[in-house]
Amino acid sequence: MSDNPLRTIMAPRSIAIVGASNNPTKMGTIQYLNLRHSGFPGPVYPIHPKENQIFGVEAYPQIEDLPEVPDLAMLVVPGHLVVDMIERFGALGTRHAVIITAGFKETGQDGVAREAALMQAARAHGLHFLGPNCMGLVNTHLPLNVTAAPLISPPGHLSIVSQSGTYITQTLQYLHDRGVRLNKAVSVGNEASIDVVDVLEFLAEDPETKAIGMYIECIRRPGDFLAAARRITRRIPIIAQYVGGTAAGARSGSSHTGALAGPDDIYDGLFKQAGIIRAQSIEDVYRIGQALSSQPLPAGKRVAILTNSGGPGTAMADTLDRMGMEVPAFSAALQEKLQALLPGHASTANPVDLTFHVDMTLMAETLPEALLSSKEVDALLIHGIMDTGWADLAYPVFKDIFKMSREDFRNSLNANIEDLLDMPSRFQKPVIISSFFGRQDRAARRLQDGGIPVFDSPEKAAAAMATLHTYRTIRSKAVTSTVVHRPAPKTAQTIIDRARIDGWNEYDAKEMLRTYGVPTCHEILAESIEAARQAAHTIGFPVAVKGCHATLAHKTERGLVHLDLASEAAVTAACESIQNEAGEAAFLVCEMVRGKREFIAGVHRHPGFPPSVLFGLGGIFAEALQDTAIRLAPLTPSEALEQIAAIRSQALLDAHRGLPTVDRKALADILVNIGQLALDFPQIESIDLNPILIRDDQPLVVDALFEQKK
Amino acid sequence: MSDNPLRTIMAPRSIAIVGASNNPTKMGTIQYLNLRHSGFPGPVYPIHPKENQIFGVEAYPQIEDLPEVPDLAMLVVPGHLVVDMIERFGALGTRHAVIITAGFKETGQDGVAREAALMQAARAHGLHFLGPNCMGLVNTHLPLNVTAAPLISPPGHLSIVSQSGTYITQTLQYLHDRGVRLNKAVSVGNEASIDVVDVLEFLAEDPETKAIGMYIECIRRPGDFLAAARRITRRIPIIAQYVGGTAAGARSGSSHTGALAGPDDIYDGLFKQAGIIRAQSIEDVYRIGQALSSQPLPAGKRVAILTNSGGPGTAMADTLDRMGMEVPAFSAALQEKLQALLPGHASTANPVDLTFHVDMTLMAETLPEALLSSKEVDALLIHGIMDTGWADLAYPVFKDIFKMSREDFRNSLNANIEDLLDMPSRFQKPVIISSFFGRQDRAARRLQDGGIPVFDSPEKAAAAMATLHTYRTIRSKAVTSTVVHRPAPKTAQTIIDRARIDGWNEYDAKEMLRTYGVPTCHEILAESIEAARQAAHTIGFPVAVKGCHATLAHKTERGLVHLDLASEAAVTAACESIQNEAGEAAFLVCEMVRGKREFIAGVHRHPGFPPSVLFGLGGIFAEALQDTAIRLAPLTPSEALEQIAAIRSQALLDAHRGLPTVDRKALADILVNIGQLALDFPQIESIDLNPILIRDDQPLVVDALFEQKK
Repeated sequence: MSDNPLRTIMAPRSIAIVGASNNPTKMGTIQYLNLRHSGFPGPVYPIHPKENQIFGVEAYPQIEDLPEVPDLAMLVVPGHLVVDMIERFGALGTRHAVIITAGFKETGQDGVAREAALMQAARAHGLHFLGPNCMGLVNTHLPLNVTAAPLISPPGHLSIVSQSGTYITQTLQYLHDRGVRLNKAVSVGNEASIDVVDVLEFLAEDPETKAIGMYIECIRRPGDFLAAARRITRRIPIIAQYVGGTAAGARSGSSHTGALAGPDDIYDGLFKQAGIIRAQSIEDVYRIGQALSSQPLPAGKRVAILTNSGGPGTAMADTLDRMGMEVPAFSAALQEKLQALLPGHASTANPVDLTFHVDMTLMAETLPEALLSSKEVDALLIHGIMDTGWADLAYPVFKDIFKMSREDFRNSLNANIEDLLDMPSRFQKPVIISSFFGRQDRAARRLQDGGIPVFDSPEKAAAAMATLHTYRTIRSKAVTSTVVHRPAPKTAQTIIDRARIDGWNEYDAKEMLRTYGVPTCHEILAESIEAARQAAHTIGFPVAVKGCHATLAHKTERGLVHLDLASEAAVTAACESIQNEAGEAAFLVCEMVRGKREFIAGVHRHPGFPPSVLFGLGGIFAEALQDTAIRLAPLTPSEALEQIAAIRSQALLDAHRGLPTVDRKALADILVNIGQLALDFPQIESIDLNPILIRDDQPLVVDALFEQKK
Repeated sequence: MSDNPLRTIMAPRSIAIVGASNNPTKMGTIQYLNLRHSGFPGPVYPIHPKENQIFGVEAYPQIEDLPEVPDLAMLVVPGHLVVDMIERFGALGTRHAVIITAGFKETGQDGVAREAALMQAARAHGLHFLGPNCMGLVNTHLPLNVTAAPLISPPGHLSIVSQSGTYITQTLQYLHDRGVRLNKAVSVGNEASIDVVDVLEFLAEDPETKAIGMYIECIRRPGDFLAAARRITRRIPIIAQYVGGTAAGARSGSSHTGALAGPDDIYDGLFKQAGIIRAQSIEDVYRIGQALSSQPLPAGKRVAILTNSGGPGTAMADTLDRMGMEVPAFSAALQEKLQALLPGHASTANPVDLTFHVDMTLMAETLPEALLSSKEVDALLIHGIMDTGWADLAYPVFKDIFKMSREDFRNSLNANIEDLLDMPSRFQKPVIISSFFGRQDRAARRLQDGGIPVFDSPEKAAAAMATLHTYRTIRSKAVTSTVVHRPAPKTAQTIIDRARIDGWNEYDAKEMLRTYGVPTCHEILAESIEAARQAAHTIGFPVAVKGCHATLAHKTERGLVHLDLASEAAVTAACESIQNEAGEAAFLVCEMVRGKREFIAGVHRHPGFPPSVLFGLGGIFAEALQDTAIRLAPLTPSEALEQIAAIRSQALLDAHRGLPTVDRKALADILVNIGQLALDFPQIESIDLNPILIRDDQPLVVDALFEQKK
């Protein structure tokens, strides 16, 4: 077991709160009242300079007056009081706090200084805290809730980490109305002490958490985040929304928690690499999180669709198809079996369509059992279970006719759906329901409370099902994926030392690449025209000759690159031309590499991030198509393969118009190795390999540009 | 005014219904009871062979016994009775019907025959009908509802056309709960008589319809649909979901309404061309339809965001940004003005973030007024209006403290949002609300009922706002877009006649293209080697020589294409080689065209569709990138320009690595003209222009393949 401070923060034995008063419109009071109302089993000690009691509970004038050292201190006080109070709690022996108070880093210069002072005070006492500028936390199992909104649903298995407090407070009614139940929820605020990585690591050890949902505006420790998430997603699914990557998003997020957001494509790559499913909305975080936390994973892609209506059935099939799932036509044998259970005109292919139908036993028990027990089916989607929702809708029409009370009319339907509830675990196959009736419908309510997700549209149910399969793929891939740590090659340091003095020229850059096992074109550095001629003979005509010097940029535009030189005379002329243009340059004599397929790769550094490794389509299409994928170093070989497969034009790597299949592993090794190179030598600011040509089936780096850190 | 039969079907003076009985579990009875409950103002005549009255209303034993000729006949009877009854209603003088009964084309061979007989009977009497196999219709203004579910919301301005009855019945409670109000709704079923095009044309003339939502599995008259929708979307927005384009979707849809679905990309092109906004889910049809039917269109892209919480504010900004909208930072002047209205720490940039805040007058009136009256703002999104929803959530915590009834506690908030209701029309700027509280919240309810959309997530509110702007762009573009009808060139017929006898060779294909003004490479057809040599001199070396004959396919693979011939001798050798391989061929001598940028275009025919015109990226990337866009002929010039801009690699057409900007208009003309060519000569099955090379800034067709219809 780890010594993660959240073990105490999420389940303290006792809590002291400063900032609660007898004025119930104040935030501190609201959170105090919610804390008491949550059913927290331990003692809660309000601290108040004047009041003797706060809503009936004895209050203490000062921190030092507390009857015991509280496990957790909670502060909802004006900003200028926070540092002193943390100091005093620390002196008392308290090692954990939740700081709701805002007005720190997120407000500018003064706030930054205040946050630094806060950190200093906390560190002096080994005190860890959530916040500042956060909404607190929820632990439905203890129970404990210190947020501004009361808990209303029983515990579930989805835990939430959020950089916005709203998503664990304002949404509690919303979640209840949709049958989404939380397990633990943490608002991290400014993350001065505890950050999202700590929360992830805590939740990974929590036996009650079966899926993790995240709302992210900025990750402060991307390298650690990647390492932790990569490990966690092998066992527990993570679904995350990231919204800091656009200009307006970043400006907004910045004023929000003082976060420095990064470009969207880096986060996208980071999530893919970590095995995190990216959500496009907070609704998706909750909804897909609910499916992931409640359903077994499908063993395959074959989904059975059971519906009472063609439209939703078709829409589910369509959504599944777009997401790479299958809705296979059933075998004659299975169709015969279904036919025996079905009324006249119903369709027994897949989707199974009962058309307008009110026999809920057939819909919710008989047919699900028949479908789930079939070896042709990996998962089941149902649309059309309707109970009191439908009855309530129809009642105004029927009440005068039946002379029946609403309750009796409701009960006349009495959909029995109990047997369905344990089918997912019995068959180890996921079941997801689509219904236009929400919790006002008794069957929908019973299904949700029994752990089967009910979503309010066919497309959402189908998309959640496809995502269960996505996670299954992530988990099975992750098993074989490990980062291989190798020491830097010994000769590398020599080149680094040279570059430190002279800067990087093309030859040294490629020499460094070769040292790291990256294949380049065959080439010789020549210091004189005579040596260049000699080199051309060694390499074999035709050759390319380039001016080579650290200060030379835009070589092509300056006429410093001469291609396809077929004779000694041509080499001489090229060298003379280079000498005229750039007297100081040496000559780099290279074999001519021909290849119709061009790619690019590179490494760049973004503040706070590990080196980001880019792969993309090259050639004249590169800029127009912007077809690239980013991952962070260190890359595992299988992550690099996945990165290569992530560009839209990846089919170019397959056998293609008489060209052979490209050795993807060799290409992946390049990405792994330049990532390692950048990790080994932080003084290299950036690496650009452009182009990487494919000769036969092998990638070769033909030009390389390194930039030294300023 | 048109003589559209829906004018009577949607607003009949009297209705006869066959299939209603005194058994309330039967579909016919349910629809009859809903019809009566809807408040339909005219007489309803049930017809029943045995019963004297149906739920208290006099019934007639036979159609012929009716006291008057009903405007509308409604049939919910077994399938074998339908044809006879239509015959008899027709004889009586009824000219309009709704046929709910299923078991026609959608069920196979026998059903197809039955539907043919039905059509024959109807045509004999000039009778038009909805269905068969449909759910009926709703007209909230009359009011009239003959579906299986009762109407519960007052009239709105969104009308729905659906190929699934579910989307105008099962969803009525769903729509009510979300504040979405319908105006008219039609379930078209098998569309034997009246189809979606008729419904669109009817709704286009309906003054109460401000937006049209569609659920589509198949369009039976795509050409007419395009023409109608193109016209309608200049005035009224259409948002449509199409789900027939995937394998499973097509299978499912086919069993559903007997529809033959087409490939997804053709529908996608058709929608774009028609100015239809494509929805990815039925929820989007309703939600965005609601926004389109209730809000003014934004004059520009600048959205103000007002929020009480950073997360939702950031998420809205992020969504807007992704969808091409702007969330501009406000000027110092506007920020100052806002600052004067705001409490201490609130952010006055955009988003304006009040943080946790309960003054609803500020949130819902003061700040919206300040923002909407600013010239810096084209539209407003608000997150954070909370009223009784929040009160109900908090009440269990506070009730013991305040000793207050739930009602009193609710009223203590009393959010006044009345002034907000008329701001969209007052400022002619759209307002959309995001709230995690639905209709249980009094303010949300009041806003929805007052015509301001309230959506349950920040992303949905922002996406709907962006779509309002999308529609504004569609409408402004459409004004300048018209199809130019030109007669077929006179010389075309000569080439067509030759091709009918000999088949299409490359020269004739290109000659035809040139006749239609499509630029090709300069070329001469030579019947002898001597003539080929002569032609080469005329064109100027270097030239290309190809074997030219209608039966020659795979010319490159068979060695029948010889490029870059720089001398008479080379031309001779090429011709001899062609003669050896394909004795019967003539020689096509062409100028050598060089161009780094390659595109493809073509025309193909899909059953029931107008010719589909394809444009895409060419060259070795074509297959790997699959970067194409489809539109239907006839194309307007501006639609062709839009088609060209729809491919991902369209940036290649801009000035690029020393290459000039491509003449897009010339490229667009090619698409317009090959579409016209295919319309003029249906005997041409397909056209493939591959490649179209860009020389300087002009496109030139270098190779062309026509196929004659078999």
